[in-house]
Amino acid sequence: MPLKQPVAIVFDTFGTVVDWRSSLIADLGAYGAARGVEADWVRLVDAWRAAYQPAMDRVRKGEQPWTKLDSLHRASLDRLVAEFGIAGLSEDDLVHINLGWHRLHPWPDSVSGLTRLRSRFIIGPLSNGNVSLLVDMAKFAGIPWDMIFGSDLFGHFKPDPETYLGVARLLDLRPDQVMMAAAHNGDLAAARRCGLLTAFFPRPAEYGPHQTRDREAEQDWDIVAVDIRDLATKFGL
Amino acid sequence: MPLKQPVAIVFDTFGTVVDWRSSLIADLGAYGAARGVEADWVRLVDAWRAAYQPAMDRVRKGEQPWTKLDSLHRASLDRLVAEFGIAGLSEDDLVHINLGWHRLHPWPDSVSGLTRLRSRFIIGPLSNGNVSLLVDMAKFAGIPWDMIFGSDLFGHFKPDPETYLGVARLLDLRPDQVMMAAAHNGDLAAARRCGLLTAFFPRPAEYGPHQTRDREAEQDWDIVAVDIRDLATKFGL
Repeated sequence: MPLKQPVAIVFDTFGTVVDWRSSLIADLGAYGAARGVEADWVRLVDAWRAAYQPAMDRVRKGEQPWTKLDSLHRASLDRLVAEFGIAGLSEDDLVHINLGWHRLHPWPDSVSGLTRLRSRFIIGPLSNGNVSLLVDMAKFAGIPWDMIFGSDLFGHFKPDPETYLGVARLLDLRPDQVMMAAAHNGDLAAARRCGLLTAFFPRPAEYGPHQTRDREAEQDWDIVAVDIRDLATKFGL
Repeated sequence: MPLKQPVAIVFDTFGTVVDWRSSLIADLGAYGAARGVEADWVRLVDAWRAAYQPAMDRVRKGEQPWTKLDSLHRASLDRLVAEFGIAGLSEDDLVHINLGWHRLHPWPDSVSGLTRLRSRFIIGPLSNGNVSLLVDMAKFAGIPWDMIFGSDLFGHFKPDPETYLGVARLLDLRPDQVMMAAAHNGDLAAARRCGLLTAFFPRPAEYGPHQTRDREAEQDWDIVAVDIRDLATKFGL
């Protein structure tokens, strides 16, 4: 069966395009060393990411009004710094650490694969990050997006349908002309329920060496690839 | 006095970055010839553009709910095709002609100037065009935007303050960290009232050989340049 051809492909970012865990561990470790602040940065990064879904859930359920991800990250960071008993961080330090999410490195295949896909498709992130985070990330990592779909454009986090359908609306496309690409089965399941095409490739080290989730495709996604370069290859690019 | 340094520079597009008039005359003329449809395409293009501000004014004044520019263009086109007595255009033809606004050519200095500016600044269009129009235009013309600010992100057309301040909000910047660049004094005056920095360069042939408006700077804009390449040079890029 021939591949279904979308007009646009939108990508989950954290874990799918960029390696948030290794990037943050290296970034915070170097910063802490330079500032003379001691902490278990690996544990902090993992705890910070563990706070990610619960923080968004409060917004998704309406328990908290719309709050962009930078602000959710900051609230979690403040709490964790206190819990971990990390001393000696100024307000400027906390601002800098929180912006670590704007300085994430791409996986080795991301930029070359996206550059090839961009020759035929409109490409963009569809991320729970806010626009400013994603703009900074793209400039830092050299990612050649055509358009940036931050969750603040929709006032909703994935997997709320407003995000997937919002991309189709802003690009003036039908949902089945948009493909969601992600290393997370749950993201793709939500996109499929909205009528989008789906592409999966695993990132088995996203959560570190002991990752158990999302190691393989859990549905018959429209495309299952090895990584973003392989996705481009599957489209003949 | 040293130049004020913004973090982001946003550009008006129609007339400022792309040459809508020559592009549309060439595009429609070639299409009409290929389809065997006779019309005074130059007069049609000028009348179409003349309908632009009045159509947006109805939205600005609340006489019409939010309507994206593609749809305003289409309504004006339908009226003008009837007025001009142009016969033989199918629905597909009208769709194609309306998308002529997605296929505009840049001025000769635009892409090289923007590429230089992008090495230091976040750059994007801030246009009355909708996101899909601006994404298509950027891919067609090879314009390397970091982010695309279509008026449909704000539900407002310039010069409503929601547009200029919306850019600052989405980029998490103060208004005076954003520079508006335009070939139109009125656009810059509105941006300045919102606290943005301003850069002007003239496009004296935007409206054809008899243009009288916007031939020079009418206020002491923060920068007055010859074109976008010269703007980059003024920043030492």
